[in-house]
Amino acid sequence: MSDLPPLPAGFRTAGLHCGIKDDPQKLDLALFVSDEPCTAVGVFTQNRVCGAPVKVSRERVPAAAARGVVINSGNANACTGQRGIDDAKWMTALVADRIGCDAENVLVCSTGVIGRFLPREKLEAGIPRGIEQLAGTQEAFHNAARGMMTTDTFAKQSLREVAIGGKTVRVSGAAKGAAMIAPNMATMLAVVMTDATLDPIAAKRILRHAVNDSFNCISVEGHTSTSDTVILLASGASGVVPSSQQELLAIETAIDDVCEDLAKQIIRDAEGAGHFITIDVRGLREPDEARKIAKAIAEGPLVKTAIAGADPNWGRIVSAAGYCGVDLREEDMSLSLNGVPIYAAGTPTDFDAAALSQRLRTEKDVHIDLSLTLGDAACRFWTCDLTAEYVRLNSEFTT
Amino acid sequence: MSDLPPLPAGFRTAGLHCGIKDDPQKLDLALFVSDEPCTAVGVFTQNRVCGAPVKVSRERVPAAAARGVVINSGNANACTGQRGIDDAKWMTALVADRIGCDAENVLVCSTGVIGRFLPREKLEAGIPRGIEQLAGTQEAFHNAARGMMTTDTFAKQSLREVAIGGKTVRVSGAAKGAAMIAPNMATMLAVVMTDATLDPIAAKRILRHAVNDSFNCISVEGHTSTSDTVILLASGASGVVPSSQQELLAIETAIDDVCEDLAKQIIRDAEGAGHFITIDVRGLREPDEARKIAKAIAEGPLVKTAIAGADPNWGRIVSAAGYCGVDLREEDMSLSLNGVPIYAAGTPTDFDAAALSQRLRTEKDVHIDLSLTLGDAACRFWTCDLTAEYVRLNSEFTT
Repeated sequence: MSDLPPLPAGFRTAGLHCGIKDDPQKLDLALFVSDEPCTAVGVFTQNRVCGAPVKVSRERVPAAAARGVVINSGNANACTGQRGIDDAKWMTALVADRIGCDAENVLVCSTGVIGRFLPREKLEAGIPRGIEQLAGTQEAFHNAARGMMTTDTFAKQSLREVAIGGKTVRVSGAAKGAAMIAPNMATMLAVVMTDATLDPIAAKRILRHAVNDSFNCISVEGHTSTSDTVILLASGASGVVPSSQQELLAIETAIDDVCEDLAKQIIRDAEGAGHFITIDVRGLREPDEARKIAKAIAEGPLVKTAIAGADPNWGRIVSAAGYCGVDLREEDMSLSLNGVPIYAAGTPTDFDAAALSQRLRTEKDVHIDLSLTLGDAACRFWTCDLTAEYVRLNSEFTT
Repeated sequence: MSDLPPLPAGFRTAGLHCGIKDDPQKLDLALFVSDEPCTAVGVFTQNRVCGAPVKVSRERVPAAAARGVVINSGNANACTGQRGIDDAKWMTALVADRIGCDAENVLVCSTGVIGRFLPREKLEAGIPRGIEQLAGTQEAFHNAARGMMTTDTFAKQSLREVAIGGKTVRVSGAAKGAAMIAPNMATMLAVVMTDATLDPIAAKRILRHAVNDSFNCISVEGHTSTSDTVILLASGASGVVPSSQQELLAIETAIDDVCEDLAKQIIRDAEGAGHFITIDVRGLREPDEARKIAKAIAEGPLVKTAIAGADPNWGRIVSAAGYCGVDLREEDMSLSLNGVPIYAAGTPTDFDAAALSQRLRTEKDVHIDLSLTLGDAACRFWTCDLTAEYVRLNSEFTT
């Protein structure tokens, strides 16, 4: 277990099976607890239809004296009305009673099938067991990451360390993804912990910025889920209080990197994906324009099926840029695919399509690089291809 | 051939194989000609990257003295720079020379693979042959509809007749669709002809309105193509000049119906589709809100894969409504699928999911009916499901 990432100082976690999922090998409950009151901030789904845990947690951040997060997988708590709200609050109270704080100091997430009520009896037995198992070990952190998973095929964890004033600050994160991944938080959850001291206002700004360039720059199919949540907890247990802009920047960069790493792991593990696609869009007047173009390319089914088929189809890419509402002309655009220029200033180049297609069959990382000549703004975005396997996974239905 | 729709008075058409497509059984050239100068209006793709024929035709409408449209399939004329513009104008001149008018009186469309120059030598031989074959017969109209087809599996034609002042006004239309179908004109072309007299200003208003509720209410995958064009030609040859609002409304309704019929035929023939889906969204404050919700549902891959899998998945539908940017709450929404209420005022109903799924396996027409309580505005939208076959068709690549 030695290559698993460690937790930051001041945190203990647990992950276990409490019976929400049928398979006892699959964990369905995760706890992230700070030994002392800590700073907590969150970013939540922008879907108007949002889960009860989102409604409850959103009201509790930013917080200066939070104690942790309880997460169950296998059963979301969305479209469940007042009973859902009561269940979410009840989960936090169950944790709070046992770790010695108010329910308001605990945040909550649920992920899985929506429209079903949470199984209280399973959680009532599981949560106390989880609290007994809380530990600061690598294995405990890994189990917590596993406890969040739904159709993920691997647990997503990330670590960055920065040295500040002779001390080490750790940023450790765990996330789950898989499907319904789109900007503005899709069915994805992430908990990022640091042992630096961050006040709630700074933490909120840092998390918003980190999410904007990571979890909001990935898309599997453009469907924003109802339960997405990213939570940042800062314990201060490293003893590091950033005292200069440079020190704060170092911590901020570590948080950015952890978020980006987790976001990319979500795309690597996207349902049915055959290619991991990085999209760079440059040369726009405004960053929002670059993001809009990148998102249109990332979510264009014809772009995604072309990549699945190893088709260096410049037409589908530039026409996706053309329909997303940004004011541009075809002459403004040049495009390369895995380093090969395939479209320059409005017309296709004379490239070897068969050779490039052959490369796309073997190279599972694809780089779409679209350059415009309208300004200096850019956006980097990550997505995956659209395969028959994705359709199969998402059209399976058993009652 | 007697069940094929007839042309309106004053029009002759032709469709033939001129060699752009390899298979001699597949027609690749279509001509629609008015014997006398006629009114012509058009609606074109809103993609910023648009084909040369769109650029050329857009400048020539509205027109009071147009003579017709020349269309080739098998080779679009997009991303082809100045040479593409020259080729498009040259096509219209070739027609104009032989029917005796100015090139400016002829409109042009091209559809097929983009980024390739048109094969002038094939068109130079084919267009004069097409003009020799021009006829007012049902077969000639059917051939013209066939000449527009790309991956369509059937020719799309529609007819409506209205009696006005003892005379019959005909509205006859032909369209092609198949892929890259999205609102704002996707790779779809349509030519609608009527023998009523319509002035260009009235015709423009009528066509814009008809397109808005038909071709702009269909989506296969949300990819707006570069070459989409709908042209309305009014010859006046029926002798009917609408002289009251009622008479104009009768003609307008016939044009609306022909456009809706053609749009639905495009969805029926969408690549890889297994289900034809009608989406009704009601009870919004503004029609644009209803359209935005309908479009988000229609283009949501998770909705489309659910229908492909006969999954009565209310969660994917209401969450798509939730993420499209319209201000609403889950309590505002109720949903039925093929007449079965599955979600009411924010929570799922206690419906028999297995029975409904069984119905969705056999009923290939699906009706998604989403009612809100915020106002009286509504939108009807048509789409299809997302199948593994769609992915296969769109990821095939051969150089």
